[in-house]
Amino acid sequence: MNAPWTLERVRALRERVERERSESYFIEGVRFVVAASDAGARFRCLVLSHKLLRSPLGQMLARRLRARGIPALVVSPAEFRELSQVDEPQGLGAVVASDWRPLPGDGPSPEDCWLLLSEIRAPGNLGTLMRTAAASGARGLIVLGSPTVDPLHPGAVRASMGALYSLTLVRTTFRELVLWRRRFRPAFIGATPEGSQDYRAVSYRRPVVLVLGSERKGLDAAQRALCNARVRIPMVTGDSLNLAIAGSLLLYEVWRQRCRSPIREPSALGAP
Amino acid sequence: MNAPWTLERVRALRERVERERSESYFIEGVRFVVAASDAGARFRCLVLSHKLLRSPLGQMLARRLRARGIPALVVSPAEFRELSQVDEPQGLGAVVASDWRPLPGDGPSPEDCWLLLSEIRAPGNLGTLMRTAAASGARGLIVLGSPTVDPLHPGAVRASMGALYSLTLVRTTFRELVLWRRRFRPAFIGATPEGSQDYRAVSYRRPVVLVLGSERKGLDAAQRALCNARVRIPMVTGDSLNLAIAGSLLLYEVWRQRCRSPIREPSALGAP
Repeated sequence: MNAPWTLERVRALRERVERERSESYFIEGVRFVVAASDAGARFRCLVLSHKLLRSPLGQMLARRLRARGIPALVVSPAEFRELSQVDEPQGLGAVVASDWRPLPGDGPSPEDCWLLLSEIRAPGNLGTLMRTAAASGARGLIVLGSPTVDPLHPGAVRASMGALYSLTLVRTTFRELVLWRRRFRPAFIGATPEGSQDYRAVSYRRPVVLVLGSERKGLDAAQRALCNARVRIPMVTGDSLNLAIAGSLLLYEVWRQRCRSPIREPSALGAP
Repeated sequence: MNAPWTLERVRALRERVERERSESYFIEGVRFVVAASDAGARFRCLVLSHKLLRSPLGQMLARRLRARGIPALVVSPAEFRELSQVDEPQGLGAVVASDWRPLPGDGPSPEDCWLLLSEIRAPGNLGTLMRTAAASGARGLIVLGSPTVDPLHPGAVRASMGALYSLTLVRTTFRELVLWRRRFRPAFIGATPEGSQDYRAVSYRRPVVLVLGSERKGLDAAQRALCNARVRIPMVTGDSLNLAIAGSLLLYEVWRQRCRSPIREPSALGAP
């Protein structure tokens, strides 16, 4: 773990197995490094290409982080481009320590809303969901050690637009989750086209865990067994919504019901 | 236009300029060809790889379409894979005639909800929006002849999951749109983080055109000039939502307000 970070080791972080082994992941872009720094993330190493790093904010941030003793791997523009997943790399990246947590031992807070995910094929969908989760004030993600849900995948991190750092990432086992549920009794609400209730007809006023299935197969048997209620999002046509869309509609419905200042009745618009 | 469809011509439909020139686009997969056929789309040519086409439904559909006189381009599995954008190609595709319409000359229907888009960078986002638009009963998309919004891009078609065929695609000019708006007075509602009203505090009970800006720059000046109201989606943290998420929240809010059977007040869940 204390071996210096080389270009090759950073590149290897594209693979989940290497992220697991080193308990690290790679982020890039000034916006992301700022978000990580603001959130107090543990930096293992900066990755810098001085020629590409033109942003004054990015330059200042790099100096500040180096002054705090964080090592830097300085690479050429070509090397940085090869690491990067964006069209116009900004020349600033970082290897950050993964920050997985256990389920909160004192149970969920009254206002908690968690997302429980068992399988997501598209990392971009996961990142988009994380972005909406943070925007709607959700507490975080619960992942069941499944290799198919990884919020630290480069595509998920990028699509989260920094929201990663507003969420708590919990990794646990099914057994632990069942015990936690029995002890603290939050509402587990599963989303599925076969749900018996409209998602807007269920109360989310106590702590809630939203359970989302996979894009293709929906809720699996283990997920269904956890749910207190299964809800559907009504549709005029089609048989399902994109997973990130479905999750986002649920997240905003939870928030809507909890808003202290209720939304006034819609007012008519003036004539155009 | 009557030249036979060759592999090379079908491949060229990946490019917008070629889709425009030939007024055609390519779809693949049994699900998509079924949706196109059910919707009465005009097929110019089937693309078949017999070895890959194992689905009995797909085989039957191909036979029925060929019996109706639709020509078929028969290719090898390798050739089909090269055309395909999916991991497991099903061996059935089709070249379909683009079906762009003008703005409805007799104005919008009372229940109409349209999406007006000026720029979308990610075709997948556009397809996802189309899927939600169809699911929520929207009438269609209005595109201002912009080369950056193309619902017939292969990535958009695929992400729409067939919803393309439940929507009306309108292409028009800014000038035509202004005249249409003046004549029929639908509500133009723009979504922007700077909006002055909560999106749930505005009435969508008359015909509505939802105006979405680009992922990066939001509403442009021309879009802002069209809007009767600008609404924002509240956020606890972060500065914006993914465009497809924002559009989907608006689409479902429109539908919610129009539902004839109002949603009952949320009922508490039983104990777990």
